[in-house]
Amino acid sequence: MSRILGIDPGTNILGFAIIDSENKNLKLVHMGVIRLDYLDDAHQKLGMICTRVEEMITLYKPEVMAIEAPFFGKNVQSMLKLGRAQGVAIAVGFQKGLPTFEYSPKKIKQSVTGNGNASKEQVAAMLERILNTPMDHAYLDASDALSVAVCHYFQGNSKVTPGKKYSGWSSYAKANEEKITTKVKAIK
Amino acid sequence: MSRILGIDPGTNILGFAIIDSENKNLKLVHMGVIRLDYLDDAHQKLGMICTRVEEMITLYKPEVMAIEAPFFGKNVQSMLKLGRAQGVAIAVGFQKGLPTFEYSPKKIKQSVTGNGNASKEQVAAMLERILNTPMDHAYLDASDALSVAVCHYFQGNSKVTPGKKYSGWSSYAKANEEKITTKVKAIK
Repeated sequence: MSRILGIDPGTNILGFAIIDSENKNLKLVHMGVIRLDYLDDAHQKLGMICTRVEEMITLYKPEVMAIEAPFFGKNVQSMLKLGRAQGVAIAVGFQKGLPTFEYSPKKIKQSVTGNGNASKEQVAAMLERILNTPMDHAYLDASDALSVAVCHYFQGNSKVTPGKKYSGWSSYAKANEEKITTKVKAIK
Repeated sequence: MSRILGIDPGTNILGFAIIDSENKNLKLVHMGVIRLDYLDDAHQKLGMICTRVEEMITLYKPEVMAIEAPFFGKNVQSMLKLGRAQGVAIAVGFQKGLPTFEYSPKKIKQSVTGNGNASKEQVAAMLERILNTPMDHAYLDASDALSVAVCHYFQGNSKVTPGKKYSGWSSYAKANEEKITTKVKAIK
């Protein structure tokens, strides 16, 4: 059995999901969101991400963490803020000894539905089938976190869904240079 | 007496400096750099920032943390990476109960030298005078961290150098809307 923690770190809401895989069956253990939007202070939000992700790892003892990590954004300000949220989640995982993998939103959709441009509804429908669990509306905000956990499971089991695995920014950027709008000089 | 920890979080080198202020005198306690460039893995770098900043706070017990935080960058990828490094440092400070203040590079130069476009050499020369300590070459990589600590001292003592204090991203962005190239919809 293997337990995966999926995280979708945002600046206003952090989605999380924990799934277990056993004999090629996936089971949803827990999913939900941590609201950060009620906190006025940007630093407090980061502190909250730190505390909650740490608690989650201590409580559910996952073996691996998968993070939804958009590599492209509309502007540098939103990417800076997103990077801060991502950085905190990744550092906590690292501190807790969890191997952490990052997947782009497109990669996640591709992995879960077979279509990198699938709609939110299509992804949700596929997650219901894969996990044999109805996704009610309360789950919607956390479904991205669930998707990334499922995506990681598929990536780690290439017989199920063959696909390229990106262990992180560097490998992703290296393999997708043409997609990077402004070329980065030093990737690492 | 008040002790300030200045941090310049980068993705390859993290500069730090600790200064004490007493009776309007500033004293350099310690400064240096944490090298991250020898680490191949981006997640390991973030974990290292987490560990080292935590150690520094435990060891030197500063009362406040000041961070050099560029709000603008060349491209979204570099800002994402920078945001990750910043986020980790800020979250550690928050977890350790340290109030943390962010200053832009321009603000720091302005505060230390009176000129927001001062050269690195001009800043170093002024730091030598302020701290009555020669800045040798070994210190160069850490001088930005020292600058932000000194900047915070000046900002907190408005009689010395009157200036606008930005407690963070939100207040900075709010006060500098015209400088933000692509307008952000929700600042907070």
